[in-house]
Amino acid sequence: MNNSKEFPTPCTWYNHSVSYGETDAMGVVYYAEYLHFFERSRSLFIRERGMSYNEVEKRGVYLPVREASCRYRIPAHYDDQLNIQVGISEWKRASVKFSYDIYKEDRTLLIASGFTEHACTDKNGRPVRIPDWLKEIF
Amino acid sequence: MNNSKEFPTPCTWYNHSVSYGETDAMGVVYYAEYLHFFERSRSLFIRERGMSYNEVEKRGVYLPVREASCRYRIPAHYDDQLNIQVGISEWKRASVKFSYDIYKEDRTLLIASGFTEHACTDKNGRPVRIPDWLKEIF
Amino acid sequence: MNNSKEFPTPCTWYNHSVSYGETDAMGVVYYAEYLHFFERSRSLFIRERGMSYNEVEKRGVYLPVREASCRYRIPAHYDDQLNIQVGISEWKRASVKFSYDIYKEDRTLLIASGFTEHACTDKNGRPVRIPDWLKEIF
Amino acid sequence: MNNSKEFPTPCTWYNHSVSYGETDAMGVVYYAEYLHFFERSRSLFIRERGMSYNEVEKRGVYLPVREASCRYRIPAHYDDQLNIQVGISEWKRASVKFSYDIYKEDRTLLIASGFTEHACTDKNGRPVRIPDWLKEIF
Repeated sequence: MNNSKEFPTPCTWYNHSVSYGETDAMGVVYYAEYLHFFERSRSLFIRERGMSYNEVEKRGVYLPVREASCRYRIPAHYDDQLNIQVGISEWKRASVKFSYDIYKEDRTLLIASGFTEHACTDKNGRPVRIPDWLKEIF
Repeated sequence: MNNSKEFPTPCTWYNHSVSYGETDAMGVVYYAEYLHFFERSRSLFIRERGMSYNEVEKRGVYLPVREASCRYRIPAHYDDQLNIQVGISEWKRASVKFSYDIYKEDRTLLIASGFTEHACTDKNGRPVRIPDWLKEIF
Repeated sequence: MNNSKEFPTPCTWYNHSVSYGETDAMGVVYYAEYLHFFERSRSLFIRERGMSYNEVEKRGVYLPVREASCRYRIPAHYDDQLNIQVGISEWKRASVKFSYDIYKEDRTLLIASGFTEHACTDKNGRPVRIPDWLKEIF
Repeated sequence: MNNSKEFPTPCTWYNHSVSYGETDAMGVVYYAEYLHFFERSRSLFIRERGMSYNEVEKRGVYLPVREASCRYRIPAHYDDQLNIQVGISEWKRASVKFSYDIYKEDRTLLIASGFTEHACTDKNGRPVRIPDWLKEIF
Protein backbone atom coordinates (compact mmCIF):
# COMPACT_ATOMS: atom_id res chain seq x y z
CA MET A 1 0.00 0.00 0.00
CA ASN A 2 2.93 2.28 0.71
CA ASN A 3 4.36 3.23 -2.66
CA SER A 4 6.53 6.12 -1.49
CA LYS A 5 9.63 4.39 -2.83
CA GLU A 6 8.45 5.00 -6.38
CA PHE A 7 7.43 8.59 -5.69
CA PRO A 8 9.15 11.22 -7.88
CA THR A 9 11.83 13.43 -6.37
CA PRO A 10 12.17 16.17 -5.38
CA CYS A 11 8.92 16.11 -3.44
CA THR A 12 7.15 18.27 -0.89
CA TRP A 13 5.04 17.27 2.10
CA TYR A 14 1.97 19.39 2.85
CA ASN A 15 0.06 18.99 6.12
CA HIS A 16 -3.69 19.57 6.16
CA SER A 17 -6.20 19.50 8.99
CA VAL A 18 -9.67 18.35 7.78
CA SER A 19 -12.38 20.96 8.48
CA TYR A 20 -16.09 20.35 9.06
CA GLY A 21 -16.89 22.13 5.81
CA GLU A 22 -14.91 19.52 3.88
CA THR A 23 -17.03 16.61 5.15
CA ASP A 24 -20.38 15.41 3.81
CA ALA A 25 -23.46 13.63 5.15
CA MET A 26 -21.67 10.26 4.91
CA GLY A 27 -19.43 11.62 7.69
CA VAL A 28 -16.33 11.60 5.50
CA VAL A 29 -14.40 14.08 3.35
CA TYR A 30 -16.36 14.85 0.15
CA TYR A 31 -14.61 13.54 -2.94
CA ALA A 32 -14.18 16.90 -4.70
CA GLU A 33 -12.21 18.24 -1.71
CA TYR A 34 -9.24 16.03 -2.63
CA LEU A 35 -8.67 18.19 -5.70
CA HIS A 36 -8.42 21.20 -3.37
CA PHE A 37 -5.84 19.26 -1.31
CA PHE A 38 -3.92 18.54 -4.52
CA GLU A 39 -3.90 22.25 -5.38
CA ARG A 40 -2.79 23.31 -1.88
CA SER A 41 0.11 20.84 -1.94
CA ARG A 42 1.04 21.88 -5.51
CA SER A 43 1.15 25.55 -4.45
CA LEU A 44 3.43 24.66 -1.55
CA PHE A 45 5.67 22.63 -3.88
CA ILE A 46 6.14 25.71 -6.07
CA ARG A 47 6.61 28.03 -3.07
CA GLU A 48 9.26 25.74 -1.57
CA ARG A 49 11.21 26.10 -4.80
CA GLY A 50 11.43 29.86 -4.23
CA MET A 51 8.56 31.00 -6.41
CA SER A 52 4.78 31.29 -6.12
CA TYR A 53 2.23 30.36 -8.75
CA ASN A 54 1.30 34.05 -8.62
CA GLU A 55 4.80 34.93 -9.80
CA VAL A 56 4.61 32.27 -12.55
CA GLU A 57 1.43 33.95 -13.86
CA LYS A 58 3.03 37.40 -13.62
CA ARG A 59 5.72 36.13 -16.01
CA GLY A 60 2.97 35.30 -18.48
CA VAL A 61 2.90 31.54 -17.94
CA TYR A 62 -0.30 29.72 -16.98
CA LEU A 63 -0.71 26.09 -15.97
CA PRO A 64 -4.41 25.24 -16.35
CA VAL A 65 -5.44 21.70 -15.41
CA ARG A 66 -6.10 19.48 -18.45
CA GLU A 67 -6.80 16.29 -16.56
CA ALA A 68 -7.30 15.31 -12.92
CA SER A 69 -7.70 11.88 -11.43
CA CYS A 70 -8.03 10.53 -7.91
CA ARG A 71 -8.27 7.02 -6.47
CA TYR A 72 -9.93 6.91 -3.03
CA ARG A 73 -8.76 4.02 -0.81
CA ILE A 74 -9.73 4.86 2.78
CA PRO A 75 -12.08 7.67 3.86
CA ALA A 76 -10.83 10.73 5.78
CA HIS A 77 -12.80 12.31 8.62
CA TYR A 78 -13.22 15.63 10.39
CA ASP A 79 -10.09 16.68 12.31
CA ASP A 80 -7.86 14.11 10.58
CA GLN A 81 -4.33 15.36 10.08
CA LEU A 82 -3.43 14.56 6.49
CA ASN A 83 0.05 14.44 4.98
CA ILE A 84 0.16 15.00 1.24
CA GLN A 85 3.22 14.14 -0.79
CA VAL A 86 3.54 15.97 -4.09
CA GLY A 87 6.08 15.87 -6.90
CA ILE A 88 6.44 16.11 -10.67
CA SER A 89 6.11 12.73 -12.34
CA GLU A 90 6.35 13.72 -16.00
CA TRP A 91 7.47 16.54 -18.29
CA LYS A 92 6.27 16.92 -21.85
CA ARG A 93 7.00 19.69 -24.35
CA ALA A 94 4.02 21.81 -23.35
CA SER A 95 2.65 20.09 -20.28
CA VAL A 96 3.64 18.89 -16.82
CA LYS A 97 2.19 16.20 -14.59
CA PHE A 98 2.04 16.32 -10.78
CA SER A 99 1.49 13.21 -8.65
CA TYR A 100 -0.01 13.11 -5.17
CA ASP A 101 -0.19 10.58 -2.33
CA ILE A 102 -2.37 11.40 0.67
CA TYR A 103 -1.57 9.75 4.00
CA LYS A 104 -2.89 9.82 7.51
CA GLU A 105 -1.36 8.58 10.77
CA ASP A 106 2.15 9.88 10.22
CA ARG A 107 2.70 9.08 6.56
CA THR A 108 2.12 5.34 6.98
CA LEU A 109 -1.48 4.88 5.85
CA LEU A 110 -2.07 5.78 2.18
CA ILE A 111 -5.70 6.91 1.85
CA ALA A 112 -5.76 8.36 -1.66
CA SER A 113 -3.54 9.04 -4.63
CA GLY A 114 -3.90 10.87 -7.89
CA PHE A 115 -2.45 13.16 -10.49
CA THR A 116 -3.10 16.40 -12.34
CA GLU A 117 -1.84 17.17 -15.82
CA HIS A 118 -1.33 20.83 -16.67
CA ALA A 119 -0.99 22.51 -20.03
CA CYS A 120 1.51 25.33 -20.29
CA THR A 121 -0.17 28.34 -21.93
CA ASP A 122 0.09 32.08 -22.41
CA LYS A 123 -2.48 34.51 -21.03
CA ASN A 124 -4.88 33.76 -23.88
CA GLY A 125 -4.83 30.01 -23.30
CA ARG A 126 -2.57 29.20 -26.27
CA PRO A 127 -0.16 26.30 -25.62
CA VAL A 128 3.48 27.35 -25.25
CA ARG A 129 6.68 25.41 -24.66
CA ILE A 130 7.56 25.15 -20.98
CA PRO A 131 10.14 27.90 -20.34
CA ASP A 132 13.55 26.80 -19.13
CA TRP A 133 13.42 28.97 -15.99
CA LEU A 134 10.31 27.05 -14.89
CA LYS A 135 11.92 23.67 -15.49
CA GLU A 136 15.02 24.72 -13.58
CA ILE A 137 13.00 25.85 -10.58
CA PHE A 138 11.14 22.56 -10.41
CA MET B 1 -42.35 32.37 11.12
CA ASN B 2 -43.59 33.30 7.67
CA ASN B 3 -42.63 36.90 7.09
CA SER B 4 -43.21 36.97 3.34
CA LYS B 5 -45.76 39.75 3.72
CA GLU B 6 -43.00 42.19 4.62
CA PHE B 7 -40.70 40.98 1.84
CA PRO B 8 -39.56 43.70 -0.61
CA THR B 9 -41.02 43.79 -4.11
CA PRO B 10 -40.27 43.06 -6.87
CA CYS B 11 -38.86 39.71 -5.82
CA THR B 12 -37.61 36.57 -7.54
CA TRP B 13 -38.00 32.94 -6.49
CA TYR B 14 -35.02 30.66 -7.09
CA ASN B 15 -35.35 26.87 -6.74
CA HIS B 16 -32.39 24.86 -5.52
CA SER B 17 -31.90 21.13 -5.07
CA VAL B 18 -29.49 20.35 -2.21
CA SER B 19 -26.49 18.28 -3.37
CA TYR B 20 -24.40 15.85 -1.30
CA GLY B 21 -21.42 18.15 -1.59
CA GLU B 22 -23.33 20.88 0.24
CA THR B 23 -23.90 18.75 3.34
CA ASP B 24 -21.52 18.15 6.24
CA ALA B 25 -20.87 15.41 8.80
CA MET B 26 -23.81 16.63 10.91
CA GLY B 27 -25.97 15.43 8.00
CA VAL B 28 -27.21 18.92 7.19
CA VAL B 29 -26.31 21.71 4.76
CA TYR B 30 -23.03 23.38 5.85
CA TYR B 31 -23.57 26.96 6.98
CA ALA B 32 -21.32 28.61 4.39
CA GLU B 33 -23.39 27.09 1.57
CA TYR B 34 -26.26 29.47 2.34
CA LEU B 35 -24.13 32.34 1.05
CA HIS B 36 -23.79 30.42 -2.24
CA PHE B 37 -27.59 30.07 -2.32
CA PHE B 38 -27.88 33.83 -1.74
CA GLU B 39 -25.55 34.49 -4.68
CA ARG B 40 -27.39 32.08 -7.01
CA SER B 41 -30.74 33.70 -6.23
CA ARG B 42 -29.23 37.20 -6.60
CA SER B 43 -27.86 36.30 -10.05
CA LEU B 44 -31.29 35.04 -11.08
CA PHE B 45 -32.90 38.25 -9.77
CA ILE B 46 -30.61 40.29 -12.04
CA ARG B 47 -31.10 37.93 -15.02
CA GLU B 48 -34.89 38.11 -14.68
CA ARG B 49 -34.62 41.88 -15.03
CA GLY B 50 -33.05 41.42 -18.47
CA MET B 51 -29.40 41.73 -17.55
CA SER B 52 -26.68 39.50 -16.15
CA TYR B 53 -24.13 40.42 -13.52
CA ASN B 54 -21.58 39.72 -16.25
CA GLU B 55 -23.08 42.56 -18.28
CA VAL B 56 -23.08 44.86 -15.23
CA GLU B 57 -19.32 44.25 -14.86
CA LYS B 58 -18.77 44.81 -18.58
CA ARG B 59 -20.26 48.28 -18.12
CA GLY B 60 -17.60 48.94 -15.48
CA VAL B 61 -19.78 48.53 -12.41
CA TYR B 62 -18.88 46.08 -9.64
CA LEU B 63 -20.97 45.08 -6.64
CA PRO B 64 -18.58 43.47 -4.10
CA VAL B 65 -20.15 42.22 -0.88
CA ARG B 66 -19.46 44.49 2.09
CA GLU B 67 -21.51 42.58 4.64
CA ALA B 68 -23.32 39.25 4.76
CA SER B 69 -25.53 37.85 7.46
CA CYS B 70 -27.62 34.72 7.84
CA ARG B 71 -29.94 33.42 10.55
CA TYR B 72 -30.38 29.62 10.51
CA ARG B 73 -33.74 28.40 11.85
CA ILE B 74 -34.24 24.83 10.62
CA PRO B 75 -31.58 22.61 9.03
CA ALA B 76 -31.76 21.60 5.35
CA HIS B 77 -30.81 18.11 4.15
CA TYR B 78 -29.55 16.32 1.05
CA ASP B 79 -32.12 16.32 -1.76
CA ASP B 80 -34.28 19.02 -0.14
CA GLN B 81 -35.92 21.27 -2.68
CA LEU B 82 -35.36 24.82 -1.47
CA ASN B 83 -37.24 27.93 -2.57
CA ILE B 84 -35.30 31.14 -2.12
CA GLN B 85 -37.03 34.51 -2.24
CA VAL B 86 -34.78 37.45 -3.10
CA GLY B 87 -35.37 41.18 -3.42
CA ILE B 88 -33.76 44.56 -2.81
CA SER B 89 -34.54 45.88 0.65
CA GLU B 90 -32.53 49.09 0.66
CA TRP B 91 -30.80 51.56 -1.64
CA LYS B 92 -28.09 53.94 -0.49
CA ARG B 93 -26.03 56.39 -2.53
CA ALA B 94 -23.23 53.94 -3.23
CA SER B 95 -24.58 50.64 -1.94
CA VAL B 96 -27.49 48.25 -2.27
CA LYS B 97 -28.89 45.64 0.10
CA PHE B 98 -30.46 42.32 -0.95
CA SER B 99 -32.69 40.31 1.39
CA TYR B 100 -33.26 36.54 1.25
CA ASP B 101 -35.75 34.09 2.73
CA ILE B 102 -35.13 30.37 2.25
CA TYR B 103 -38.08 28.00 2.42
CA LYS B 104 -38.68 24.32 2.04
CA GLU B 105 -41.90 22.36 1.52
CA ASP B 106 -43.49 24.65 -1.04
CA ARG B 107 -42.67 28.08 0.35
CA THR B 108 -44.39 27.49 3.68
CA LEU B 109 -41.54 26.57 6.02
CA LEU B 110 -38.99 29.35 6.50
CA ILE B 111 -35.65 27.71 7.29
CA ALA B 112 -33.22 30.63 7.01
CA SER B 113 -33.11 34.31 6.20
CA GLY B 114 -30.40 36.86 5.64
CA PHE B 115 -29.05 39.79 3.72
CA THR B 116 -26.03 40.95 1.75
CA GLU B 117 -24.92 44.54 1.43
CA HIS B 118 -22.98 45.47 -1.70
CA ALA B 119 -20.80 48.46 -2.39
CA CYS B 120 -20.98 49.93 -5.87
CA THR B 121 -17.44 50.37 -7.23
CA ASP B 122 -15.43 50.82 -10.41
CA LYS B 123 -12.94 48.23 -11.65
CA ASN B 124 -10.32 49.41 -9.16
CA GLY B 125 -12.59 49.04 -6.16
CA ARG B 126 -13.28 52.77 -5.72
CA PRO B 127 -16.84 53.55 -4.54
CA VAL B 128 -19.05 55.13 -7.19
CA ARG B 129 -22.65 56.39 -7.17
CA ILE B 130 -25.08 53.71 -8.31
CA PRO B 131 -25.78 54.46 -11.98
CA ASP B 132 -29.37 55.27 -12.93
CA TRP B 133 -29.57 52.49 -15.54
CA LEU B 134 -28.84 49.95 -12.79
CA LYS B 135 -31.50 51.38 -10.49
CA GLU B 136 -34.03 51.38 -13.29
CA ILE B 137 -33.39 47.73 -14.13
CA PHE B 138 -33.86 46.67 -10.51
CA MET C 1 -14.96 16.25 -30.26
CA ASN C 2 -18.60 15.25 -30.00
CA ASN C 3 -18.63 11.69 -28.77
CA SER C 4 -22.30 11.53 -27.78
CA LYS C 5 -22.90 8.69 -30.22
CA GLU C 6 -20.93 6.33 -27.99
CA PHE C 7 -22.60 7.56 -24.80
CA PRO C 8 -24.28 4.83 -22.70
CA THR C 9 -28.08 4.61 -22.59
CA PRO C 10 -30.31 5.30 -20.80
CA CYS C 11 -28.90 8.73 -20.02
CA THR C 12 -30.07 11.87 -18.25
CA TRP C 13 -29.41 15.52 -19.11
CA TYR C 14 -28.81 17.90 -16.21
CA ASN C 15 -28.75 21.68 -16.75
CA HIS C 16 -26.51 23.82 -14.58
CA SER C 17 -26.03 27.57 -14.41
CA VAL C 18 -22.45 28.50 -13.38
CA SER C 19 -22.35 30.64 -10.22
CA TYR C 20 -19.71 33.19 -9.22
CA GLY C 21 -18.67 30.97 -6.30
CA GLU C 22 -17.69 28.23 -8.75
CA THR C 23 -15.17 30.41 -10.60
CA ASP C 24 -11.58 31.16 -9.62
CA ALA C 25 -9.06 33.96 -10.13
CA MET C 26 -8.29 32.68 -13.64
CA GLY C 27 -11.87 33.77 -14.47
CA VAL C 28 -13.01 30.20 -15.18
CA VAL C 29 -14.75 27.40 -13.30
CA TYR C 30 -12.36 25.87 -10.72
CA TYR C 31 -11.43 22.30 -11.59
CA ALA C 32 -12.82 20.67 -8.43
CA GLU C 33 -16.30 22.06 -9.21
CA TYR C 34 -16.68 19.60 -12.07
CA LEU C 35 -16.89 16.77 -9.54
CA HIS C 36 -19.81 18.63 -7.94
CA PHE C 37 -21.44 18.84 -11.39
CA PHE C 38 -20.91 15.09 -11.80
CA GLU C 39 -22.62 14.46 -8.45
CA ARG C 40 -25.58 16.73 -9.23
CA SER C 41 -26.17 15.01 -12.58
CA ARG C 42 -25.77 11.56 -10.97
CA SER C 43 -28.39 12.44 -8.33
CA LEU C 44 -30.77 13.55 -11.06
CA PHE C 45 -30.12 10.32 -13.00
CA ILE C 46 -31.18 8.30 -9.94
CA ARG C 47 -34.18 10.58 -9.21
CA GLU C 48 -35.40 10.28 -12.81
CA ARG C 49 -35.49 6.51 -12.34
CA GLY C 50 -38.00 6.93 -9.52
CA MET C 51 -35.67 6.78 -6.56
CA SER C 52 -33.36 9.14 -4.69
CA TYR C 53 -29.88 8.37 -3.42
CA ASN C 54 -31.35 9.09 0.02
CA GLU C 55 -33.72 6.16 -0.46
CA VAL C 56 -30.84 3.94 -1.65
CA GLU C 57 -29.00 4.69 1.62
CA LYS C 58 -32.16 4.05 3.67
CA ARG C 59 -32.21 0.55 2.18
CA GLY C 60 -28.70 0.04 3.56
CA VAL C 61 -26.80 0.44 0.29
CA TYR C 62 -24.01 2.99 -0.07
CA LEU C 63 -22.15 3.99 -3.23
CA PRO C 64 -18.92 5.72 -2.13
CA VAL C 65 -16.67 7.00 -4.90
CA ARG C 66 -13.58 4.82 -5.45
CA GLU C 67 -12.18 6.71 -8.39
CA ALA C 68 -12.92 9.98 -10.17
CA SER C 69 -11.41 11.37 -13.32
CA CYS C 70 -12.03 14.42 -15.45
CA ARG C 71 -10.55 15.70 -18.71
CA TYR C 72 -10.89 19.47 -19.19
CA ARG C 73 -11.10 20.60 -22.82
CA ILE C 74 -12.53 24.13 -22.86
CA PRO C 75 -12.97 26.41 -19.83
CA ALA C 76 -16.43 27.33 -18.51
CA HIS C 77 -17.27 30.82 -17.24
CA TYR C 78 -19.65 32.58 -14.87
CA ASP C 79 -23.26 32.45 -16.06
CA ASP C 80 -22.58 29.71 -18.64
CA GLN C 81 -25.48 27.34 -19.06
CA LEU C 82 -24.02 23.85 -18.95
CA ASN C 83 -25.67 20.64 -20.14
CA ILE C 84 -24.37 17.51 -18.49
CA GLN C 85 -25.06 14.09 -19.93
CA VAL C 86 -24.83 11.21 -17.46
CA GLY C 87 -25.24 7.44 -17.77
CA ILE C 88 -23.90 4.14 -16.49
CA SER C 89 -21.00 2.86 -18.58
CA GLU C 90 -20.06 -0.28 -16.67
CA TRP C 91 -21.38 -2.73 -14.08
CA LYS C 92 -19.14 -4.98 -12.04
CA ARG C 93 -20.07 -7.41 -9.28
CA ALA C 94 -19.65 -4.85 -6.47
CA SER C 95 -19.13 -1.59 -8.31
CA VAL C 96 -20.72 0.67 -10.89
CA LYS C 97 -19.22 3.30 -13.21
CA PHE C 98 -20.94 6.52 -14.28
CA SER C 99 -19.79 8.53 -17.31
CA TYR C 100 -20.27 12.25 -17.87
CA ASP C 101 -20.02 14.64 -20.80
CA ILE C 102 -20.34 18.38 -20.12
CA TYR C 103 -21.48 20.66 -22.94
CA LYS C 104 -22.18 24.30 -23.42
CA GLU C 105 -24.02 26.12 -26.20
CA ASP C 106 -26.93 23.73 -26.54
CA ARG C 107 -25.23 20.37 -26.29
CA THR C 108 -22.91 20.96 -29.25
CA LEU C 109 -19.64 22.03 -27.62
CA LEU C 110 -18.06 19.36 -25.42
CA ILE C 111 -16.05 21.13 -22.72
CA ALA C 112 -15.22 18.28 -20.31
CA SER C 113 -15.77 14.60 -19.81
CA GLY C 114 -15.08 12.14 -17.04
CA PHE C 115 -16.19 9.21 -14.95
CA THR C 116 -16.71 8.13 -11.37
CA GLU C 117 -16.43 4.55 -10.15
CA HIS C 118 -18.45 3.65 -7.07
CA ALA C 119 -18.08 0.70 -4.72
CA CYS C 120 -21.28 -0.85 -3.43
CA THR C 121 -21.05 -1.19 0.36
CA ASP C 122 -23.11 -1.66 3.51
CA LYS C 123 -23.32 1.01 6.23
CA ASN C 124 -19.93 -0.04 7.63
CA GLY C 125 -18.14 0.31 4.32
CA ARG C 126 -17.90 -3.41 3.61
CA PRO C 127 -18.24 -4.29 -0.10
CA VAL C 128 -21.50 -6.01 -1.02
CA ARG C 129 -22.93 -7.39 -4.27
CA ILE C 130 -25.04 -4.82 -6.09
CA PRO C 131 -28.65 -5.68 -5.20
CA ASP C 132 -30.95 -6.65 -8.08
CA TRP C 133 -33.50 -3.93 -7.24
CA LEU C 134 -30.80 -1.30 -7.78
CA LYS C 135 -29.72 -2.77 -11.11
CA GLU C 136 -33.32 -2.93 -12.28
CA ILE C 137 -33.93 0.73 -11.43
CA PHE C 138 -30.88 1.85 -13.36
CA MET D 1 -9.15 49.89 12.04
CA ASN D 2 -7.25 47.71 14.50
CA ASN D 3 -9.70 46.78 17.24
CA SER D 4 -7.66 43.98 18.80
CA LYS D 5 -7.65 45.80 22.13
CA GLU D 6 -11.34 45.05 22.59
CA PHE D 7 -10.99 41.44 21.46
CA PRO D 8 -12.19 38.81 23.98
CA THR D 9 -9.64 36.73 25.88
CA PRO D 10 -8.49 34.01 25.83
CA CYS D 11 -8.06 34.01 22.08
CA THR D 12 -6.38 31.85 19.47
CA TRP D 13 -4.55 32.86 16.31
CA TYR D 14 -5.05 30.66 13.24
CA ASN D 15 -2.86 31.07 10.14
CA HIS D 16 -4.32 30.36 6.72
CA SER D 17 -2.78 30.40 3.27
CA VAL D 18 -5.32 31.39 0.57
CA SER D 19 -5.70 28.71 -2.12
CA TYR D 20 -6.71 29.20 -5.75
CA GLY D 21 -9.94 27.33 -5.12
CA GLU D 22 -10.98 29.97 -2.58
CA THR D 23 -10.79 32.81 -5.10
CA ASP D 24 -13.43 33.88 -7.64
CA ALA D 25 -13.52 35.57 -11.04
CA MET D 26 -13.14 39.00 -9.39
CA GLY D 27 -9.64 37.77 -8.45
CA VAL D 28 -10.37 37.87 -4.72
CA VAL D 29 -11.45 35.40 -2.03
CA TYR D 30 -15.14 34.49 -2.50
CA TYR D 31 -17.29 35.80 0.34
CA ALA D 32 -18.60 32.42 1.53
CA GLU D 33 -15.03 31.21 2.15
CA TYR D 34 -14.73 33.51 5.16
CA LEU D 35 -17.23 31.29 7.00
CA HIS D 36 -14.91 28.35 6.33
CA PHE D 37 -12.03 30.42 7.80
CA PHE D 38 -14.21 31.13 10.86
CA GLU D 39 -14.84 27.41 11.30
CA ARG D 40 -11.17 26.47 10.91
CA SER D 41 -10.11 29.02 13.53
CA ARG D 42 -12.95 27.93 15.86
CA SER D 43 -11.81 24.29 15.62
CA LEU D 44 -8.27 25.33 16.49
CA PHE D 45 -9.55 27.38 19.44
CA ILE D 46 -11.25 24.27 20.83
CA ARG D 47 -8.24 22.04 20.07
CA GLU D 48 -5.87 24.45 21.84
CA ARG D 49 -8.00 24.07 24.95
CA GLY D 50 -7.26 20.34 25.00
CA MET D 51 -10.38 19.06 23.28
CA SER D 52 -11.65 18.64 19.74
CA TYR D 53 -15.12 19.42 18.47
CA ASN D 54 -15.25 15.71 17.64
CA GLU D 55 -14.87 14.91 21.33
CA VAL D 56 -17.55 17.50 22.23
CA GLU D 57 -19.98 15.68 19.91
CA LYS D 58 -18.99 12.29 21.35
CA ARG D 59 -20.11 13.60 24.74
CA GLY D 60 -23.53 14.28 23.22
CA VAL D 61 -23.20 18.05 22.86
CA TYR D 62 -23.69 19.79 19.51
CA LEU D 63 -23.06 23.43 18.65
CA PRO D 64 -24.96 24.15 15.40
CA VAL D 65 -24.64 27.67 14.01
CA ARG D 66 -27.75 29.79 14.59
CA GLU D 67 -26.42 33.01 13.11
CA ALA D 68 -23.36 34.06 11.14
CA SER D 69 -22.27 37.51 10.09
CA CYS D 70 -19.25 38.92 8.32
CA ARG D 71 -18.14 42.43 7.43
CA TYR D 72 -15.71 42.58 4.49
CA ARG D 73 -13.30 45.55 4.58
CA ILE D 74 -10.39 44.75 2.25
CA PRO D 75 -10.26 41.89 -0.27
CA ALA D 76 -7.90 38.94 0.17
CA HIS D 77 -6.04 37.34 -2.76
CA TYR D 78 -4.48 34.05 -3.79
CA ASP D 79 -1.42 33.16 -1.72
CA ASP D 80 -2.19 35.77 0.98
CA GLN D 81 -1.16 34.63 4.44
CA LEU D 82 -4.11 35.38 6.72
CA ASN D 83 -4.05 35.59 10.50
CA ILE D 84 -7.39 34.94 12.14
CA GLN D 85 -8.03 35.86 15.75
CA VAL D 86 -10.85 33.96 17.45
CA GLY D 87 -12.40 34.09 20.90
CA ILE D 88 -15.67 33.76 22.77
CA SER D 89 -17.45 37.09 23.07
CA GLU D 90 -20.66 36.03 24.84
CA TRP D 91 -22.17 33.18 26.85
CA LYS D 92 -25.91 32.69 27.20
CA ARG D 93 -27.78 29.87 28.97
CA ALA D 94 -28.02 27.68 25.87
CA SER D 95 -25.83 29.45 23.34
CA VAL D 96 -22.32 30.76 22.80
CA LYS D 97 -20.97 33.45 20.50
CA PHE D 98 -17.55 33.40 18.82
CA SER D 99 -15.94 36.54 17.37
CA TYR D 100 -13.38 36.67 14.57
CA ASP D 101 -10.95 39.25 13.19
CA ILE D 102 -9.08 38.44 9.99
CA TYR D 103 -5.78 40.19 9.31
CA LYS D 104 -3.14 40.14 6.65
CA GLU D 105 0.42 41.48 6.69
CA ASP D 106 1.39 40.31 10.14
CA ARG D 107 -1.71 41.07 12.14
CA THR D 108 -1.70 44.78 11.35
CA LEU D 109 -4.23 45.09 8.52
CA LEU D 110 -7.78 44.10 9.50
CA ILE D 111 -9.51 42.85 6.37
CA ALA D 112 -12.70 41.30 7.78
CA SER D 113 -14.49 40.65 11.03
CA GLY D 114 -17.53 38.71 12.08
CA PHE D 115 -19.23 36.42 14.53
CA THR D 116 -21.07 33.10 14.75
CA GLU D 117 -23.71 32.30 17.35
CA HIS D 118 -24.14 28.63 18.24
CA ALA D 119 -27.01 26.90 19.97
CA CYS D 120 -26.12 24.15 22.42
CA THR D 121 -28.20 21.06 21.61
CA ASP D 122 -28.39 17.31 22.12
CA LYS D 123 -28.09 14.82 19.27
CA ASN D 124 -31.70 15.43 18.23
CA GLY D 125 -31.30 19.18 17.97
CA ARG D 126 -33.11 20.00 21.22
CA PRO D 127 -31.63 23.00 23.09
CA VAL D 128 -29.78 22.08 26.27
CA ARG D 129 -28.02 24.13 28.94
CA ILE D 130 -24.30 24.52 28.22
CA PRO D 131 -22.56 21.88 30.36
CA ASP D 132 -20.10 23.14 32.97
CA TRP D 133 -17.23 21.03 31.60
CA LEU D 134 -17.55 22.85 28.28
CA LYS D 135 -17.56 26.28 29.92
CA GLU D 136 -14.51 25.38 31.99
CA ILE D 137 -12.55 24.26 28.94
CA PHE D 138 -13.26 27.48 27.10
